[in-house]
Parts: sequence; structure tokens; C-alpha cells
Amino acid sequence: MRTIFYNMRSTREILITNDDGIEAEGIHVLAGIMAKYGNVTVVAPLHPQSGKSAALSMDTPLYLKQVKDEPGYREYTFNGTPVDCVKIGINECFPKGELPDIVVSGINHGANCSVASLYSGTLGACIEGTVYEIPSIGFSLCTHKPHPDFSPVLRYADSIIEKFLAFPPDKDTYLNVNFPAIPADEILGIRMARRGRGRWVEEFDTHYDENGGKYFMMAGHFENHEKEGSDGDHWLVYHKYITVVPHRVDTTDYAEMERLGRAWGL
Amino acid sequence: MRTIFYNMRSTREILITNDDGIEAEGIHVLAGIMAKYGNVTVVAPLHPQSGKSAALSMDTPLYLKQVKDEPGYREYTFNGTPVDCVKIGINECFPKGELPDIVVSGINHGANCSVASLYSGTLGACIEGTVYEIPSIGFSLCTHKPHPDFSPVLRYADSIIEKFLAFPPDKDTYLNVNFPAIPADEILGIRMARRGRGRWVEEFDTHYDENGGKYFMMAGHFENHEKEGSDGDHWLVYHKYITVVPHRVDTTDYAEMERLGRAWGL
Repeated sequence: MRTIFYNMRSTREILITNDDGIEAEGIHVLAGIMAKYGNVTVVAPLHPQSGKSAALSMDTPLYLKQVKDEPGYREYTFNGTPVDCVKIGINECFPKGELPDIVVSGINHGANCSVASLYSGTLGACIEGTVYEIPSIGFSLCTHKPHPDFSPVLRYADSIIEKFLAFPPDKDTYLNVNFPAIPADEILGIRMARRGRGRWVEEFDTHYDENGGKYFMMAGHFENHEKEGSDGDHWLVYHKYITVVPHRVDTTDYAEMERLGRAWGL
Repeated sequence: MRTIFYNMRSTREILITNDDGIEAEGIHVLAGIMAKYGNVTVVAPLHPQSGKSAALSMDTPLYLKQVKDEPGYREYTFNGTPVDCVKIGINECFPKGELPDIVVSGINHGANCSVASLYSGTLGACIEGTVYEIPSIGFSLCTHKPHPDFSPVLRYADSIIEKFLAFPPDKDTYLNVNFPAIPADEILGIRMARRGRGRWVEEFDTHYDENGGKYFMMAGHFENHEKEGSDGDHWLVYHKYITVVPHRVDTTDYAEMERLGRAWGL
């Protein structure tokens, strides 16, 4: 437990959330993995929050409900976004003036590589942890199956968490870990990676409602812009590597600040 | 109009959205300013979307409705987020294979400085424009008043837009412009800035519903972590400067990728 003035406790305090919500298998698998590293506090969205990015809920009554209270393990639901869950966890679930030691988000059901990282609620939670200068890490398994084979995570998560605890990222940066959805035995290794290039195309399907009204549903497919042998996360994870991407929360482009400052005559 | 194969048109095509929704004054003031730079297509959220960050709407029927069609000016509503509005605008409001030349978001009613940039729907729209490699810029006026004095924007927006068109940001980067909510005569100038440091504290108010159930509402106040004379946007904008912050959309922390790669032995 990090204390603002002095450190009174020896047990690590771990705040866990996700974007798939309290019903998803991934967050419970993650809570099980994290239990050996300290006291676990789960604050999970009551409803699925995929694609919520770093959104927060304004003008919305938000209810925090404790659903489990066991030694070393507390579980809450909150009818907000992943960012809201981290905020309420920090504001209400720990003694005033104390912060959790780490924020862990996931295990997401689905990849958070390349541009998906921009829309990811899993990573929105990591952004919020980082705003509080708490080392934060997000885990995603690259399949949307509700009951996936978690063996790659169960085999490799501990080595990643131990490295994360021993060598945490810079205080402005969180880590985004993606696991290929293949049997653990087929994993080729863990790679530090950059965010891969690509984007979604043909993003909407067209439908008609019962009154003949045309509407759109988010759809599309991912178009990879990386070459063979890339160190982009999307390429690597689909070539059997677990990827770890450090993402900055201060997104200021300092080089452009200089260049445009001169070009604009400011 | 940018064409994927060749340039057929000479008139600039401008896609405008916001996060306050179609009813807000700011987007209509912005559309008026932009009209002199080309054909304007407004795709505005049907409902307010403040704090939606780069969220997108999954599993939601989305209706695009054209509400105005005048020479050089089209206006649509869409019941999605700012990111959804940019996506549907690009996918449905321009000829297939063509993209708008620029994306302009705002004028937001409220500041988008410092950490607010993480949660901002105004800037979520700019992120989405940048994913499409379209030069994108967001404008915010630092007051939540529904009928503010837009004079600082009306006085200074043209000089910023002309610079933006002549010297656009790098293709991975968008611009975040904040105007102080003071009379135009009191503005001290335009400054290229970095994202200021700070965070929200005491983030929730407690309330009780009619059944005595306790709930929380997002609240809080901003705690500035910048010193006097800072080049952070929050400090500058509250000292009478218009700020322009270049924000990167590829948030990979390349320095940490190297450092952690070595520390972790990857």
C-alpha cells in the first residue's frame, strides 16, 4: 500500500478492473492469478464496456455495490466505465490518502493491438491508473470467445507480472499485454513491441428496422499496415508472440511542438 | 477533397463534429467560421457526448439523419459518439474512396487542457480523423456556459486555421486548441504548449435516492501540478494565452520499449 506520508503496511494492494464487466471469465481468472501478489480489490463494471476508451460517466447516478468480502479479496460492481471503476476504487475502496500499489486490467476477451488500443476500455482503466501515477498493466487474450482457453495467460502471466513489479514502467506510461489465442505450448516467446499500424475498414453494416428505417451497426475488419517481420504488436501476436507495448499517457508530441512552433512563427 | 487515386476536385472538403451535440452553439459557430475554407459537412452527435473520449458504440443501432442540405453546407445527426460521427461521416457522407481534407471538432463548451484531454470527446473525434491520416484539429472555449462570448475564437480562429492548413501536423498527430473565456481584447497571444500536468481530486459527490440508496455523481476539482511560467496548456490558458498542443495518436513509448526490453531481458 502506497501512503502519501509514510508506508504503514507491508501487503501489496492490487486494484483490478476490466471492460467486459463482472460476468466475464477473464477478470476472475486475473483475480486468481493476482491473489499471490497481495490483497485484491476487484471493482468491475456492472455492464459490458467494450470500446469505451477512457470515457467517464457524467451526469449519471453511479452505484457501488460490494458483492464479496473475503480475507485478501474484495469484489465490487459499479455501473460505470472502466475509468469510473478505477476512480471510484481509488476514491472509496482504500483508506483516504492511500492508493493501491498497482492497477491491473483484464483479462480482456479480444485483442487490444494496433488502433484497437485507442478504443479499448481495458486500456482506459490503465490510463486512469497512470493519471494517479500507479503502475498499471492491461492483459488481453486475442479471442472474443466467452469461454476461451486461458492456458497462454496461465503459463506466462507470472513471469510478466514479476518483471512488471521488479522493473515497472515510467510513471507516465502503462503496459499493454496481448496473448495469442493459441495453446500455451505453441507460444514462441514474449516480445517488447510498438503499437502496430493498421486501421478498421468497411466499418458499418447496414440494417433496416421494423419501420423500414435504415440504421448502421459497427462492424468492419482490420487492415494490417505492417510488413512481415514487423515489431508491431498486431503482427507479432498473430505470429505466436506475447506482446508488451509501453503506452504513454502524456501524448504531447514534443518534436511537433518545436517544429510547428517555428513553422507557425509562435 | 483527397482522392485515393487522383484529385478530381478543387474545393476543400471539411468534416466537422463535436461532443456537445447538435444543439450546442459551439458547433454552429465553428461551421460558420469554416465555411470560407471549403464545403462543410457537419455530422454531430444527436445527444451530448462530453467525457466520451475515443469511445465507440458497439452493439447499438445507429441512425444517420440529414437535417440540412444547402450549397456548400450539409448537416447530419448521428446517435453515436464523436468517434462514431467521424467514422460514419467518412464512410457514408463522401464518395467511396474519397476522404475529407480536414476534420475539425468543437467548439467545445469547456476546457480540454491537461488530463481533460484524455476524457475529451472533442479530441476523440480528432484521434479518429488522425487514424485516417486526415489533418485534424479541435477547438475548445474554456467555459461551460451554453451561450458564451465566442469573441476570442472569432478574433483568432482564422489565423490558427490558416497556419494549420499551411503547416499541418505530422500524420500521427492532431492539434488541441484552447481559448481562454475572456474578452478577445484581453488575449495575450497564441502559444504552442505541452499538455499540462495535474489531475482531478475529490472526484465524486455522494447522494441518496428516494429509497435511501447511496449513489455517486462525477464531480471534483482540478489540481494544477504546474509551476508559475509553465509551458503547460492549463497554466497558459488561465494566464490569457490561446494554447495549441500537438497530441500524438501513436502512444508507443519508444524510450520505455528500449529500457524495459533490456531490464526485462527480452
